[in-house]
Formats: sequence, structure tokens, C-alpha cells
Amino acid sequence: MKGDGIGRYHPAKLTGFCKGVLESLGLPPEDARVVADSLVRANLEGTDSHGVSRLPIYARRVREGRISARPEVRVERSGAVLRVDGGNALGQVASYRALEAAIPVAWEAGIAAVAVRNSNHFGTAAYYCQMACREGMALIATTNSPPGIVPWGGRKAYFGTNPIAFGFPTRREPPVIVDMSSSVVARGKIILAAQQGLPIPPGWAVDGEGRETTDAAAALQGAVLPLGGPKGYALALAVEMLSGVLSGAAFGPHVNNIYEEGASPSGVGHSFILLDIARWMPLDEYYARVDQFIGEIKATPRAAGAEEVLYPGERRYRAFLEKTREGIALPETVVEELAELAGQYGVPLPAAAA
Amino acid sequence: MKGDGIGRYHPAKLTGFCKGVLESLGLPPEDARVVADSLVRANLEGTDSHGVSRLPIYARRVREGRISARPEVRVERSGAVLRVDGGNALGQVASYRALEAAIPVAWEAGIAAVAVRNSNHFGTAAYYCQMACREGMALIATTNSPPGIVPWGGRKAYFGTNPIAFGFPTRREPPVIVDMSSSVVARGKIILAAQQGLPIPPGWAVDGEGRETTDAAAALQGAVLPLGGPKGYALALAVEMLSGVLSGAAFGPHVNNIYEEGASPSGVGHSFILLDIARWMPLDEYYARVDQFIGEIKATPRAAGAEEVLYPGERRYRAFLEKTREGIALPETVVEELAELAGQYGVPLPAAAA
Repeated sequence: MKGDGIGRYHPAKLTGFCKGVLESLGLPPEDARVVADSLVRANLEGTDSHGVSRLPIYARRVREGRISARPEVRVERSGAVLRVDGGNALGQVASYRALEAAIPVAWEAGIAAVAVRNSNHFGTAAYYCQMACREGMALIATTNSPPGIVPWGGRKAYFGTNPIAFGFPTRREPPVIVDMSSSVVARGKIILAAQQGLPIPPGWAVDGEGRETTDAAAALQGAVLPLGGPKGYALALAVEMLSGVLSGAAFGPHVNNIYEEGASPSGVGHSFILLDIARWMPLDEYYARVDQFIGEIKATPRAAGAEEVLYPGERRYRAFLEKTREGIALPETVVEELAELAGQYGVPLPAAAA
Repeated sequence: MKGDGIGRYHPAKLTGFCKGVLESLGLPPEDARVVADSLVRANLEGTDSHGVSRLPIYARRVREGRISARPEVRVERSGAVLRVDGGNALGQVASYRALEAAIPVAWEAGIAAVAVRNSNHFGTAAYYCQMACREGMALIATTNSPPGIVPWGGRKAYFGTNPIAFGFPTRREPPVIVDMSSSVVARGKIILAAQQGLPIPPGWAVDGEGRETTDAAAALQGAVLPLGGPKGYALALAVEMLSGVLSGAAFGPHVNNIYEEGASPSGVGHSFILLDIARWMPLDEYYARVDQFIGEIKATPRAAGAEEVLYPGERRYRAFLEKTREGIALPETVVEELAELAGQYGVPLPAAAA
């Protein structure tokens, strides 16, 4: 069964395994640590699509030289703006280094903008929100990705599923983290439905002719629809402007998919805006306001049938606590792929607990 | 008929009328010009909900002293961050002055953040995007507003319809302007359906118990649903954090509705982030990239039944050109209200052309 095929993995051991494989591929220990931490953290938070299931494709592309194991990440500063050439690094490496450089700039100016080009898939945007929140900073993060969403009125994907994320630190509660793609649904869910021969709900996708379809196989020939129709299209476009056009990265269909064969780098771009909250108001005052805000939202009278009103970041945090305690369940297919990597790189895969 | 009841108004004359009324109310000429320009520009662009139909309520609240005619707008700078006390000005006045102060900061630092508190309804966010684009700058703008959207799982509105806007300058084409609320639909459309005894589509609203409804009257007892479900909820919350919590403004249900009677100021907050594009790359290079981006999007193969692929800002610009030429049509109810203001303030309402 998906999710609990072969027991549960200890998070720290799984992180150590990923780090070991990445180091065997030539990544410096600090870079390997960031990538491993980002992947395992995604699993802990229930975002399995951005977790250790990505390690095999990362490893393959690094091995082939299509992603750089020892990139030269170059940061150029102008005022409070950082232009970063990711050197075709793994996206986590480019983004982490870019944000490390940006944090002191935000201390100095109150705000810092970061444009990253020549990068790759950066994992979850939530990861960078958490990094900012630890510094008492808010973050707006975007990234582009290979084509998945049609422009409104079109029948061919142009934009990636282009997430936008917002992170806001809190005092006691888990941080407020909004991390949403511009699409109605992840393409992975359509792939799954097609594999199982199931229909998909209306409003998810169009076929190759741009007609709405509930046939999962036909949808895979077409494209995913933007969130809420024209508004999601507009959002995907704004994210592409920030992450792709303005950063100097590839944009639209010029962003290459690491899952497809071929030698070109992905050319992914990211955009980050860091806000040092202490410049807006004393942190104590800010935290008191956030406490009130969250408290009021959670106390909203519930709709019929709803158990609880959650705020963005809460579900992710609960999963994190639960899986940190119970371990990470992985589907059999992922375990098999990791075992293969273990053999290839001589890094033992930790045993799962029953 | 809505939209073309009594002929068409010449935009400049209509602007002059609005300016005259606002000056009679005590606004300084420059402030009156900005508000009048923002309102008429909204009509020209087809956003009638934010056009001259707002003048009567603005006038009433200024007359009652609930909105300040001669506000002290105070701007405090710290690094590249501006904290602005709007002095309970009309939102257009506070926002325009705040952005005027922020533009030189963005020249200096490459980026500037502006947090406005103690403000009011600021008209369309697109207006400020246009202001930034004229300076070769991109803008991210948000504002909160009186409660309209339910938290996901709740049955009582907490957030405003909380728009987020993105403006990006272009060389030849109309600027790229995304200006979207976090709700599925404007509350005004539900009011209209209720007046006409028509049902509303599923997915627009919940009734007073938080149950989805297609009964427009029941929906007015409940709340509008967020765009795309939980994602729109998360977006409304992020906009509220930026515009309300972080700015020091009112937030959630503490934002007062100017349409409701009572003495309290609205306490609306806005957030602006200005990006001076020349810090990202030479403007010529940027414009060439945007040209390519827009050209490719417009050349996307069309879906069955779609006539054209438009980018955000194009429809607005076409309406602007058409109405600048043909004049602005106003519904009879709006004309009656304006005629009443004309009598009250001794400012003649211009005649409409047939």
C-alpha cells in the first residue's frame, strides 16, 4: 500500500542516508546536508511529492553532469537586491546560499530581494519560509517550473505549476506558512488516476484540444487548469514574471524538465523577498497581533460538518510532530529506488521499523 | 439598462466634476485630483464597481468627518521600509502620497516596502501598479477590506475580499497588471442576483450556517467563498497579514465598512513592495524578455471555442481605449446620485452625450 508498505524510517537516519548519497555524488557536506534536510523535512510535513522520492532523479542528473555537484553560486549585490547565478546547482543549494547572503542585507535595509537564475527544482517553498521565520523575518517566495498550466483560452501548457509562498513567524504557534501552486491540482494526482483507470473531477484539466475533460488519460495529453480559472492563470503569470523573466532565468516552455532526457540544464528561476519584521514594529507587538489574529481565526464559528478551522502551516506542523515521533512511511516503489541508490553509492539504507 | 441608461460621459469632464465635489468637501486640489482620477480611470477600464459610483459614499463619510478631508499623512522611513500613518485619509490619498515617498527609496535601494495603516478604501490596486510602471518599476500591492470571506471550515466572514496585485512595465504593449481578489466572486454580483431573484452558481457562497448555497438571498446572510477553496483562504490570510497585521492597521472584522453607519474610522491597511527593475537587469534587456514572454503567451494554440489568449491587463487597456474615445456609460441610479451631489455642492454635473 502507498504510504506504509515497508514500515517507518527514522527521520535522522533517512537524512543521513540522503546526505551520504549526495556526498558520494561529489556534493560538499554542507550542501548535501541542506538538500537532505529539505527532502526529509518535506516527508515529515506530509508533502511526500517533494520528499526523498526526488533523490533518485537528483542523483541521476548530478551523475550525468546535468546538475552541478560543486556549483559556483555567484551573488551580486546592488542596493538591497541580490542577483544570484545558481551555477546550475540543485535548487536547494542555490536558494539556501542566496538566502544566507540575503539575511544580512535585510538586517541592514529592512527588506531584501533575491533573484536566482540558472537553478533547479528547489523542493518545497515552505522550507525557505521556515528559514526566514527563524530569523524573525517574513518571506515571499516564488519559483517557476517546467510547463504544466495552460494560459486561459489556450490548449497548450506554458507556465509551470508556479507556486507562491508566504511565511510569517509566530511566537508560540507553528509559523503561518502559505505554500500554494497556481494550479487546481498537482499533475501527480492525474497520473495516479490514469494508472488506476479512474476519472478525474471536472475542472481539473483539459485534453489535447483544450476541452475540459474528466478522462485522466486524455488530461495527460493536455494540461492542468489554473486555480480558479482566469485568476490562477494571472497568478501563474505573475509568478513567472518574478521568478523567470525578472530573474534572468528561463521562462515558460524554455524551463527544462529534469524528468525528461536531454543535456540542457533546467534553467529554473526563483524569487525571494525577505522582510525584517522589526522594521515594521517591535517584535513583541507583532507577535501579540499575530496571536490575536490566529486566535480569532481559529475561534470562527464552524461550518456544518467542519471539525476545526486550521490556519495555513498548522496541518504541516502537526504532520511534522507526528512523523518525527512515529517515523516516515515510504511506498515500496520509493524504497526500491532508494535501495538501488544505496547499492550504487555504497551507502547503507537504514532499516525501517515495523 | 445597467451601463447605458443615460448616454455617455466625457472622461475629463467627469473627472472635473468629481474633483470639484471633493474640493467642495475640503480636499486640497492635488488630493482631489488623485481621487477623481482613480475613480474615473476605474470606469474607463471597465471596473465600474470601483469607479464614480463610490463618490457618494466617499462624500458622505468625509462630510460626516468619518474620513479626513485634510489628513496628516505621516511617513516614517527606516532603511528601505516606509511606515505610513494615513491619517484616516481617503485610501487613494494615503496610497498616492506613500508611493510618491517610496519611489525615491526604491531608486536608492532597488526595492522599497510600504506599510500603510489608518487608511480607507483605496480604489483599484491596478491604479498603483500603473503608477509604478510609469517609473519603470514593478509593484506588489495588497489591501485588506471589511469582512467578506470565510476562513475554510468556518461559517462567518473574517477576511475582506483582500486583493493582491502585481504590476510589471512593458515597452510597447499595455503593462502586465494582475489585480485579483481572494474571493471567487465580488459580493456585488450576489447582491444583483438577489435583486433579480436569480440563483447563483454553486461554489460562490455559503449561507448563514456555512452550507454551500445557490440561493442568492441566503448567500447574503452568509459569506462569499474564497477563490479555489482552501488556496483562496490561504491567500486572503496572507494578504491580511501583509496589509493588516504587519502594517499596524485594523485586521479581520476590526476593519469597519464605510457603507455601515457608525463613527469609527475604517482602519484599512495596505502594503506595497516596489521593485526598481533596472537593478535586476538593464531595462532594454528586461523589455525584450517581456516582449518575448507576452508574444509567446498570445501565440499559445487556442482552446476549442476560445477567440484569443489575452494577458492580464490587456482587457482593461482595451476598455480604456474604447471608453476614452466613446465616453463612460453610467447606470441611471449612479447618475441620480451624482446629480444629487451636484445640487448639494453646487458643482454642475456635465451633460451626457447621446
